[in-house]
Amino acid sequence: MGGSSRILIIGATGYIGRHVAKASLALGHPTFLLVRDSTASSKPEKAQLLDSFKASGANILNGSLEDHASLVEAVKKVDVVISTVGGEQIANQFNIVRAIKEVGTVKRFLPSEFGNDVDNSHAVEPAKSVFELKAKVRRAIEAEGIPYTYVSSNCFAGYFLPSLAQPGLTAPPRDKVVILGDGNAKAVYVNEEDIGTFTIKALDDPRTLNKTLYLRLAANTLSFNEVVRLWEKKIDKTLEKVYVPEEQVLTLISETPFPGNIGIAIGHSIFVKGDQTNFEIGPDGVEASQLYPDVKYTTVDDYLSKFV
Amino acid sequence: MGGSSRILIIGATGYIGRHVAKASLALGHPTFLLVRDSTASSKPEKAQLLDSFKASGANILNGSLEDHASLVEAVKKVDVVISTVGGEQIANQFNIVRAIKEVGTVKRFLPSEFGNDVDNSHAVEPAKSVFELKAKVRRAIEAEGIPYTYVSSNCFAGYFLPSLAQPGLTAPPRDKVVILGDGNAKAVYVNEEDIGTFTIKALDDPRTLNKTLYLRLAANTLSFNEVVRLWEKKIDKTLEKVYVPEEQVLTLISETPFPGNIGIAIGHSIFVKGDQTNFEIGPDGVEASQLYPDVKYTTVDDYLSKFV
Repeated sequence: MGGSSRILIIGATGYIGRHVAKASLALGHPTFLLVRDSTASSKPEKAQLLDSFKASGANILNGSLEDHASLVEAVKKVDVVISTVGGEQIANQFNIVRAIKEVGTVKRFLPSEFGNDVDNSHAVEPAKSVFELKAKVRRAIEAEGIPYTYVSSNCFAGYFLPSLAQPGLTAPPRDKVVILGDGNAKAVYVNEEDIGTFTIKALDDPRTLNKTLYLRLAANTLSFNEVVRLWEKKIDKTLEKVYVPEEQVLTLISETPFPGNIGIAIGHSIFVKGDQTNFEIGPDGVEASQLYPDVKYTTVDDYLSKFV
Repeated sequence: MGGSSRILIIGATGYIGRHVAKASLALGHPTFLLVRDSTASSKPEKAQLLDSFKASGANILNGSLEDHASLVEAVKKVDVVISTVGGEQIANQFNIVRAIKEVGTVKRFLPSEFGNDVDNSHAVEPAKSVFELKAKVRRAIEAEGIPYTYVSSNCFAGYFLPSLAQPGLTAPPRDKVVILGDGNAKAVYVNEEDIGTFTIKALDDPRTLNKTLYLRLAANTLSFNEVVRLWEKKIDKTLEKVYVPEEQVLTLISETPFPGNIGIAIGHSIFVKGDQTNFEIGPDGVEASQLYPDVKYTTVDDYLSKFV
């Protein structure tokens, strides 16, 4: 009873791409991964990951976003294209739009999003430009009339929860916690495996066609103060809380050089401005756990239990 | 006896731009700053900084890299253009190249560099693309025949030394230090004020015309192990050292999401690959302290003393 849509994943060895690829294989889709020649040969850790994907039935295609012919050949093989590229490759997604337009048979494109909803943002620079670039990719997709789903998966749980967003920590703090703003803005923490599963569930669902899929899971939509309180309950201890007012956050952003300033500016958007939840989901959006109530996802509470 | 070249600085309220602007004013140059309307109105901290520049004689011009007319008007007023923009604005520097070409009277352009020498890099993604973009700006400048100086100022001391590059620390550690690679690659730590001074000294110097100015100050060119040893001597204590082999650093990069992965990849280039010093300065380069032996600069040793 595997999925029948053929899937191309671009960026499958990356941070979130590996979870999307795993979910695609686990849910039985014929899965194609566009991978640079150099990825396997120069990075042992990625080579190992690709081997495990191959063992699970993935088809590895050599190519890249800069090699148009390779991209077109890959796109021709599939029904759905998912991009999970990051960093400077975000801008190269216009090449995917061109290739999909040229091939003409793709039924759905999911560009690399997997964070805040970029059309509902109060981010300041340098995060503002990062989000605006993703919005430009959305506009290019829409201008070409390519069927799409945008996955707004909000905070990666595996990145924010193990440290409670405290730089340099690998386990939640047991003495002191620094909180951007007043800690009351709500954010959404989603386990990376669950992001993979919801993404694959949505990619050929007519209910997500030309819509944004919001992963705003109720049990994981919490203010920073609430996350801290959950943790305090688990360790049965009250932490010292240092609140950083918005003006100080803005100063910190301008006094931190690249690339540290991007991380703080994203933190400002999420934790001070509440950009993951400060808007209503409109007619162009759907919420993942409402569409797929059977998917059992990891809650923030479960997640934090690992560190007690 | 002030400098007579008229200087335009684009990015003067940013991390390094503020030091360049201060040096330009301190050394007596007629100084023009291109600033967005929104910078002063929306950011109190930047408004304050601009007020202090105005009080020192700076001329504030409203405009931005996206507003071509404002850029051309600003460029027309000066002899030298310095860009200190960061993040996504790096790509918008092609607009400066166009404006300088159009105006035709600029005697020197210093694009935003202020880090590793991007033509001598072994960086992996996502840092690789960041450096490549700066290299593309260099090639555009050269293709248009615009006179230039590239300032390769290496590590910002104020960013790396107060934490000894340990994420989340605001003072050097007194117990344990994590070291990328074997700690033997040499890097260069330069105080931000000194970067401003050397940049302004160089901008109309015929010896730096169409060359890269390297800030490879002898007293500040140290391996990470040497920096740690300096600190240990100051606090009279031996730290526990955790060395992270290159393969583990590469794994960490691919398992950290954007934007944290960029910082680690830059660290890999500096501390594992030794990209700040693993090449000879050729005929197209000059070293700052050799050209300006009278500039008294802050040494790493001085810098660390502040934290004892």
